[in-house]
Amino acid sequence: MVCRKTADLPRSELLKLSAELEEQYLEFKKRGVKLDMSRGRPAAAQLDLSMGAADNVTNYIGVKGADYRNYGLLDGIPEMKQFFAELLGLDAADIIVGGNASLNLMYDAMVRLMLHGTAGEKPWKDIKKVKFLCPSPGYDRHFAICEHLGIEMIVIPMKEDGPDMDMVERLAAEDEAVKGIWCVPLYSNPEGICYSDETVERLSSMKCAAKDFRIFWDNAYGIHHLYEETKLRNIMESCRRAGNPDRVYYFFSTSKITFPGAGIAMVAASENNRREILRTMGIQTIGYDKMNQMRTLNFLRNAANTREHMKKLASSLREKFEIVLSALEANFAGSDMAAWHTPRGGYFVALDTLPGCARETIRLAAEAGVKLTPAGSTYPYHRDPRDSNIRIAPSFPPCGELREAMYLLCICIKLAAVRKILAE
Amino acid sequence: MVCRKTADLPRSELLKLSAELEEQYLEFKKRGVKLDMSRGRPAAAQLDLSMGAADNVTNYIGVKGADYRNYGLLDGIPEMKQFFAELLGLDAADIIVGGNASLNLMYDAMVRLMLHGTAGEKPWKDIKKVKFLCPSPGYDRHFAICEHLGIEMIVIPMKEDGPDMDMVERLAAEDEAVKGIWCVPLYSNPEGICYSDETVERLSSMKCAAKDFRIFWDNAYGIHHLYEETKLRNIMESCRRAGNPDRVYYFFSTSKITFPGAGIAMVAASENNRREILRTMGIQTIGYDKMNQMRTLNFLRNAANTREHMKKLASSLREKFEIVLSALEANFAGSDMAAWHTPRGGYFVALDTLPGCARETIRLAAEAGVKLTPAGSTYPYHRDPRDSNIRIAPSFPPCGELREAMYLLCICIKLAAVRKILAE
Repeated sequence: MVCRKTADLPRSELLKLSAELEEQYLEFKKRGVKLDMSRGRPAAAQLDLSMGAADNVTNYIGVKGADYRNYGLLDGIPEMKQFFAELLGLDAADIIVGGNASLNLMYDAMVRLMLHGTAGEKPWKDIKKVKFLCPSPGYDRHFAICEHLGIEMIVIPMKEDGPDMDMVERLAAEDEAVKGIWCVPLYSNPEGICYSDETVERLSSMKCAAKDFRIFWDNAYGIHHLYEETKLRNIMESCRRAGNPDRVYYFFSTSKITFPGAGIAMVAASENNRREILRTMGIQTIGYDKMNQMRTLNFLRNAANTREHMKKLASSLREKFEIVLSALEANFAGSDMAAWHTPRGGYFVALDTLPGCARETIRLAAEAGVKLTPAGSTYPYHRDPRDSNIRIAPSFPPCGELREAMYLLCICIKLAAVRKILAE
Repeated sequence: MVCRKTADLPRSELLKLSAELEEQYLEFKKRGVKLDMSRGRPAAAQLDLSMGAADNVTNYIGVKGADYRNYGLLDGIPEMKQFFAELLGLDAADIIVGGNASLNLMYDAMVRLMLHGTAGEKPWKDIKKVKFLCPSPGYDRHFAICEHLGIEMIVIPMKEDGPDMDMVERLAAEDEAVKGIWCVPLYSNPEGICYSDETVERLSSMKCAAKDFRIFWDNAYGIHHLYEETKLRNIMESCRRAGNPDRVYYFFSTSKITFPGAGIAMVAASENNRREILRTMGIQTIGYDKMNQMRTLNFLRNAANTREHMKKLASSLREKFEIVLSALEANFAGSDMAAWHTPRGGYFVALDTLPGCARETIRLAAEAGVKLTPAGSTYPYHRDPRDSNIRIAPSFPPCGELREAMYLLCICIKLAAVRKILAE
């Protein structure tokens, strides 16, 4: 589709458009709406579909006779490992079951690398500069971990099939300070991009100057399809095949399958990596909540049942995604004021405004009562170099409110664009 | 009581005793008993008393309208803070509710001090040597955290009313590398010693060379009375009064109130400390399991009900402690082969063998089928300078098995002692 360049419109047309938009904006503002679309939270109606995951647990004696009410089993109950293995096509022996948050497992992994290093290499705290590759736009909480630990972040542009692999390969091969990469390989946060087989293979087999280069594989939306299933190549296998079995930590959780914050997280890793993980884990805790592992499992049961459950969640989410996308389509088809990807799963829609307009768009929306993810959040250090990316989280508000919010957002995108062009 | 010194016995008597003990030992060994008394795990019968804490949760909408199934409330639900505050005489505003393990909160605190420091002082990783005071015998998992992080541990002898405070004060005042102290102030692990008011006051008000000296106050057995309640002075208040509000982190959990591993942990701290804790906590997680907070609270309800619940647990534990203590009394009253404290609460009995006999006693017991906590575990680096401390964990085995285990242990203590004296 050929985009009409807004900046090329005659000034008279821009002025007319501006006047209309200002009026629409003021009208909306007067209504005193209050909506929060800043985070990817499920709606209450969606959580209602998982109430079985809050049921009481009576089957607390495990397959091997252990009492899950008591201490023991640092790396998780065997039933839960088996479940994750079946669900994700992993090897149960590779899996360590954690607490309620995969983010915490990622943070712990990064802290372990800082304090103790891996594979006999220097702890990262003792290296002058540690750099991480950050495909962007990306997940703000990944970037926050790096920032908190003083790890320098390098922005890697996203393409249709994952991060710009030419750039990733070049930086990994050239610079031994480059110690790893963040990846959300399926329905990336926020754009909903899926890594191609080739991207997975290149990540698994590329030459790295740092012997302790690590891929943080956050498969947060691994079974969160809105439509048909998108296949993701198994990176554990491709790393093994490429002779780099220790390169990847594979994270997953049930936070957006049952309850955010009350789910079960896991990390899969090679034998060497598991030994290191468990050595530190055995210092930090006696064990995670096995009763909640059993509780979650009682509800999800097996992979097939979980996929059926995800279809129910998808049908409640799909309508919301379609509200967002059809509003964008109706307002911006053939315009350069907004560009977006059409995600087939995950939790977000990301759009790009005209350069230099994201912050102002978000400010305008907030002033009229709709809170969005803060501008810049999807980039390292909260610095979106083009000030154009906006993350939309459609999951939380009911459909009516979401329509209202999108109505306002579209006005704000246009208003910010037109004001900017007129001021130039 | 005047102790008879075993070493002063006539050789003929020692030889006779030795022959009897060897025979008793071999006889026991033949029976092929298998018992594990190595860790402080509750018995299944005790866990049965808490099954209400595994019930389903239907009241997931909190006092302020938040949905506890969803993200939010990093520092815990207000109901749980209120509960802990009432139970422990703390200020609810000082409390941060964590995950399932207070050990993890302690580990996180130590890692935070290593990586980020506190109170504007240097991160501990950037200090040549960091030392910690370790009242010993103490809790092996505290010492393991220090060892894992390369923090040098200094053994502080325990007295009847807590650690040797003259030594603590001297070291804290003289050496700015001394950055903190581990404390289990009520029914210490493993001796069951309770800190006196004076000890608490001295810890709170002593002069410290390090501005960032921190007390890790692990009140693990804060309400775990076997008999009458032992009062513990409120260290949050005494630190505040002494003008050192930031000196202490106060840890507690319900692990040994409901289910080990499926309970709720907390840390109480000053405003400055809480700000630092939450800054890092907000990076490592979106939040802990609020459903389990509500679930635990639904069962425990309030402080009075929880104290009643603890009385039930105590009556099942008391019998076991009395089996241990009466076996020791029957075998070693008036003898120097074993000395012990008589705990009024907590989870352990600790005894001291003759110097140089603990390791051999534990080896003998293991060879005859009874596994005890490994020798040295109650000292930093697993090095008991006198090789004499043994930690007995009576909670797990049923009473019959416990009697058997104590029967064997008493034989092993004597056998190791007599063998040693005869060999000298």
